[in-house]
Amino acid sequence: MRAAVIHGPRDVRVEDRPDPKILTPGDAVVRVVAACVCGSDLWPYRGIRETKAPHPIGHELVGVVEEVGADVTVAAPGDFVIAPFSLSDGTCQSCRAGFTSACDHVTMFGGADRDGLPVDGAQGEYVRLPLAEGSLVRVPGPVDDALVPDLLTLSDVMSTGHHAAVSAGVGPGSTVVVVGDGAVGLSGVLAAARLGAERVVAMSRHADRAELAREFGATDVVAERGDEGVAAVRDLLGGDLADSALECVGTKESMRQALGSVHGGGRVGFVGVPAGGSELPIGYLFSRNLTVGGGMAPARAYIPELLPDVLSRTIEPGRVFDLELGLEDVGEAYAAMDERRAIKVLLRP
Amino acid sequence: MRAAVIHGPRDVRVEDRPDPKILTPGDAVVRVVAACVCGSDLWPYRGIRETKAPHPIGHELVGVVEEVGADVTVAAPGDFVIAPFSLSDGTCQSCRAGFTSACDHVTMFGGADRDGLPVDGAQGEYVRLPLAEGSLVRVPGPVDDALVPDLLTLSDVMSTGHHAAVSAGVGPGSTVVVVGDGAVGLSGVLAAARLGAERVVAMSRHADRAELAREFGATDVVAERGDEGVAAVRDLLGGDLADSALECVGTKESMRQALGSVHGGGRVGFVGVPAGGSELPIGYLFSRNLTVGGGMAPARAYIPELLPDVLSRTIEPGRVFDLELGLEDVGEAYAAMDERRAIKVLLRP
Repeated sequence: MRAAVIHGPRDVRVEDRPDPKILTPGDAVVRVVAACVCGSDLWPYRGIRETKAPHPIGHELVGVVEEVGADVTVAAPGDFVIAPFSLSDGTCQSCRAGFTSACDHVTMFGGADRDGLPVDGAQGEYVRLPLAEGSLVRVPGPVDDALVPDLLTLSDVMSTGHHAAVSAGVGPGSTVVVVGDGAVGLSGVLAAARLGAERVVAMSRHADRAELAREFGATDVVAERGDEGVAAVRDLLGGDLADSALECVGTKESMRQALGSVHGGGRVGFVGVPAGGSELPIGYLFSRNLTVGGGMAPARAYIPELLPDVLSRTIEPGRVFDLELGLEDVGEAYAAMDERRAIKVLLRP
Repeated sequence: MRAAVIHGPRDVRVEDRPDPKILTPGDAVVRVVAACVCGSDLWPYRGIRETKAPHPIGHELVGVVEEVGADVTVAAPGDFVIAPFSLSDGTCQSCRAGFTSACDHVTMFGGADRDGLPVDGAQGEYVRLPLAEGSLVRVPGPVDDALVPDLLTLSDVMSTGHHAAVSAGVGPGSTVVVVGDGAVGLSGVLAAARLGAERVVAMSRHADRAELAREFGATDVVAERGDEGVAAVRDLLGGDLADSALECVGTKESMRQALGSVHGGGRVGFVGVPAGGSELPIGYLFSRNLTVGGGMAPARAYIPELLPDVLSRTIEPGRVFDLELGLEDVGEAYAAMDERRAIKVLLRP
């Protein structure tokens, strides 16, 4: 099969790889219908995170089951499935508590599973998925091809935006600031609006992203950053600050922006992969009584709640994809996101 | 009047101080019926926090109103009142959200108010309280003297334990680990039990404190610390970890203990005054999907909820006081707590 492999900074190649096979009774082999490039894929692409050895890449996919191991009952060959970006057993305490991304046996794409067996990347024609029973979500068919982008977002970006909003305690009537106008931040706007937020302030300096944020439910857009950004939020809110902030970037600056945007006792939901240096200042949290929660989104746990809204077109999270390419053009997909020419790129193998 | 003044490490003296007077229309002058020594008072006492200039000390008190300014309607001369350890306006956004300790005009005992006027310490015969209208809670009289210790805990320690439990999301059926067996930790045990926790694991190495923890509702006591402490929690919980942990110390080690004691997606409520070095490791929070919240307890906001349970003797938080001294013996009060001869010392002026 053909699949993307990262070799180092700005060096993602499509290569011939072995066709995946069932290796354990808990596996499924899935033919990838659509995958995409994540903001976090840009970290090794940009060299911010070192690539010690070439490895398959990509962790978001929807596809059709080709084959399942003996223990897999959740889906059968021919079924259309969503694979969450982290694979989980579905049975440990963290999974039972709804935090599948903190599973005792959490397994990531492009690495090795708990048995030491290689796991394919999602940016390829096929993947072997360990922990299939706990991880895969079957979509009742037939699946309208027009829904593929929306369904694909549930594997990561929409579930991640939802996690930011849930972690920040967003509910009916909330006032929310969303820090980050990438695909996750935009999904956070959509999630906050979906959860009933009354006021959603998107922080964005890019006209196209701000426009999509408004279409996703942002009531206001703030272009300023830092203290000026906080002041702009106060101006918008009549001197008040937000109840909740969604931190959708992962830098020290974005976390500060989020923490500064909420009133005393406010909540920050963070889903930006920590880029280093964003350790939380506990004295500041203490004096302002802030709550911070989040992390890797438990996409598997959220999909059953979000899927009906996608199938009914109540939400259209797939609109974050503004470029679609074939798998062979994966290099251009990364470059377009790296250079901010695209918000998020969908790949069709 | 007589009042305690801290001059430096291990040097707290009772001195003659000016009798407080009403200085602004928002003030009250209160005769202190009982005050006490807080674990956080030990920081300057031990020299961990520098005392740059001598200043009055103490921030927990119940008393009888002597006089009020023109704007104060919440209490009148002769009323028995509880003063929360932080004074607040009751009108700003943080106060309205229930986080009075993060008030825009938060004012602490023993320092200066927003007008630059000196505020007395609570360890004295009388105090001038600015922001009286937003801060004081009147206790319907007549007040049984036997209830004074219980009422006094609402000014800080019981409200703080409650804040840890609320911040950690404790509710009916919760499994909770309480880190810290000082008066705050013990109050956290009581608060968790009061909120319906099914399993409350107190971490304590002191037989007398462990015994009080059990009387307050702890179902288990763990003496081990660090990784061994986490392993002991797992043993108790059949391989699982807790839903919530209360961090009631403020050190790096105690925060690690709390974070390690909860399952993926768990919540830590922190009320230990950060001693430095306990910045939160965001990568760890991210990978385990933990939520951390807390800070200075909004005692003023909690007192109306906790007071009826004290008046009805449903809870007896005053049992944390195991030594009662006169104000003139304040030096011995600090020494007894510093040397861990007493859990918490009540002072009668």
